[in-house]
Amino acid sequence: MRLADLPTPALILDRQVLQRNLAAMQDRARLLGVRLRPHLKTAKSAEVARLALGPGRDGITVSTLSEARYFLAKGFRDLTYAIAITPDKFAEVARLLRAGAELTIITDDIPTARALGAYGKSQGLTIPVLIEIDTGQGRGGLVPEEPTLVPLGEILHRSGGTSLQGVLTHAGHSYRCRSLGEIAAVAEIERAGAVAAADRLRGAGLPCPVVSVGSTPTALQAEHLAGVSEIRPGVYMFMDLFQASLGLCQPADIAVSVLTAVIGHKSKQARLLVDAGALALSQDQSRPGFGRVQGLPLHVAEVNQEHGFIAADTAEDLPPQPVGTRFRILPNHSCMTAAMHGQYHVVDGSDTVLAVWKRCRGW
Amino acid sequence: MRLADLPTPALILDRQVLQRNLAAMQDRARLLGVRLRPHLKTAKSAEVARLALGPGRDGITVSTLSEARYFLAKGFRDLTYAIAITPDKFAEVARLLRAGAELTIITDDIPTARALGAYGKSQGLTIPVLIEIDTGQGRGGLVPEEPTLVPLGEILHRSGGTSLQGVLTHAGHSYRCRSLGEIAAVAEIERAGAVAAADRLRGAGLPCPVVSVGSTPTALQAEHLAGVSEIRPGVYMFMDLFQASLGLCQPADIAVSVLTAVIGHKSKQARLLVDAGALALSQDQSRPGFGRVQGLPLHVAEVNQEHGFIAADTAEDLPPQPVGTRFRILPNHSCMTAAMHGQYHVVDGSDTVLAVWKRCRGW
Repeated sequence: MRLADLPTPALILDRQVLQRNLAAMQDRARLLGVRLRPHLKTAKSAEVARLALGPGRDGITVSTLSEARYFLAKGFRDLTYAIAITPDKFAEVARLLRAGAELTIITDDIPTARALGAYGKSQGLTIPVLIEIDTGQGRGGLVPEEPTLVPLGEILHRSGGTSLQGVLTHAGHSYRCRSLGEIAAVAEIERAGAVAAADRLRGAGLPCPVVSVGSTPTALQAEHLAGVSEIRPGVYMFMDLFQASLGLCQPADIAVSVLTAVIGHKSKQARLLVDAGALALSQDQSRPGFGRVQGLPLHVAEVNQEHGFIAADTAEDLPPQPVGTRFRILPNHSCMTAAMHGQYHVVDGSDTVLAVWKRCRGW
Repeated sequence: MRLADLPTPALILDRQVLQRNLAAMQDRARLLGVRLRPHLKTAKSAEVARLALGPGRDGITVSTLSEARYFLAKGFRDLTYAIAITPDKFAEVARLLRAGAELTIITDDIPTARALGAYGKSQGLTIPVLIEIDTGQGRGGLVPEEPTLVPLGEILHRSGGTSLQGVLTHAGHSYRCRSLGEIAAVAEIERAGAVAAADRLRGAGLPCPVVSVGSTPTALQAEHLAGVSEIRPGVYMFMDLFQASLGLCQPADIAVSVLTAVIGHKSKQARLLVDAGALALSQDQSRPGFGRVQGLPLHVAEVNQEHGFIAADTAEDLPPQPVGTRFRILPNHSCMTAAMHGQYHVVDGSDTVLAVWKRCRGW
């Protein structure tokens, strides 16, 4: 099938661009001397995960237990579930461990750690756990100097139902930076905070083999990662307009786009209507508007559920485009846009659809 | 299963509230003397559609060809696909008609109508078409006085491959109103515009049996619908915080919510973290924030992919809530929030999950 024959809207993945992005991050991890544990929250695809890891390698990050189930079924065993665990999810964690997953979970909460230890023991399991560290994002995690860090480590190490694996942090505040220099500074805060937390645990006689950091911006801009064992970037696989706005890629590095067709032209409003709306593009406004038309000075100015409104970047007027004209829209935030779709239509720089790769959904 | 045992995040549908909303709109259509052709773009569920229509009735509106396929497979034959058709979708329309659908499509474009007529003729089909009318939203459609209206009607009536069924409009600009009075005024503009377009077609000797209008706000606030044959509201089934902000419902009328669990507490920032983020709630900000906690003075102030940040409405501080505490979050825009989920967990005013109803997805 060719792109011209594909029903619209549809999510397109360019494998050439994807593989260039994957190779760049593999090189980067080698240069930094850390393991790459790619985060599959963006791609949610076994085919993409295999390319991201390279042949014979395992070890990925997931953002939902649905992803953990999916990737385990596809043969990936070494999984880190990087959202703080809650007691209602313990039984599913146990089920995944019994099914063969080497699943590591995270917490920053003493009551949860106690309950998890008791649960693991009652099930005859030793559940691997990382302590979540907040290195400035202000989301989950203990700050590195938090008094409860070592007591939490003690509980996880000695409960009999859990094993303390180390620390994990995510410098999500790198997304709020305005320059590459600022990102490099956040990367150093992320590294230093994770290492400081690890040192505190080790200083108390606790094990801490894993020091896990990562976001695409900090992975690309860190000057060094001394003391870090692994990075967990995810968006780098596809990149997007937001990463381009940070200076981390060019529009030509964006591997995903939404194929759409013109369904109308509102000449008085200088707007084209297309059949990719909020459900095909997401409502992400991390950039002004809801995405850009690939290769043309046009952007998505507004979205309704199944309608997108396309406007010219500079002129007030827009040359009419016949109904049926096709565009590819580059996403603001590829995690959100890809999540609106059940599959990728894979191309290789040309118009031919080579494969359809399913995406994992839900929780 | 009980709500306390359901993995989070999960979409909950309260059938009692749903049925009250459905009955209210059925009463409203009877009072207005029009047919109710419910729009399933919000619910995307055969179970909801059956309740919305009542026993033995058919005739719904859909927003994607995926919905058309799904509802046809579930026994619904009388379908209006209310997004402007493009030539690449003709073949799928033909397939659906041959599979037994009484599928009506819409256009506002003369070249598309010509191509559709030729296509229908070549396939030995007479494809039912409504002309889309713009009654002020500024999205799809011809304005009622547009010179091309009658020529477009002529083409559809005489092509040999299409049949002119009438006119269809959607007063989406009712969502921009600030008062019930303003909505009533938009409802009258919607009605009068659709009827004016129908009168122009009839005045030219063309058939126009269908005069279709509708949005939830205008369906609820129209003073009368003289000359209209059917209404197509959709959001009324579930309602949401946005409809409540228009004064069209109370929070107690909102039938869908997202069940979520506390995963952390950031006391310095007066924020609770929950496991319902942008993928469970959508990024809809039609109300400030991303939703409200049912029954508590709390709202979702920020979302990341799998994290929601909950803040108190008035106080700076938030009482700590143990990890695992559950909330139900009411959506800003139920179409968008429901679209993030693959199924409804159906309750009946209690904590017991009575059924799981699948949702249709994709295009």
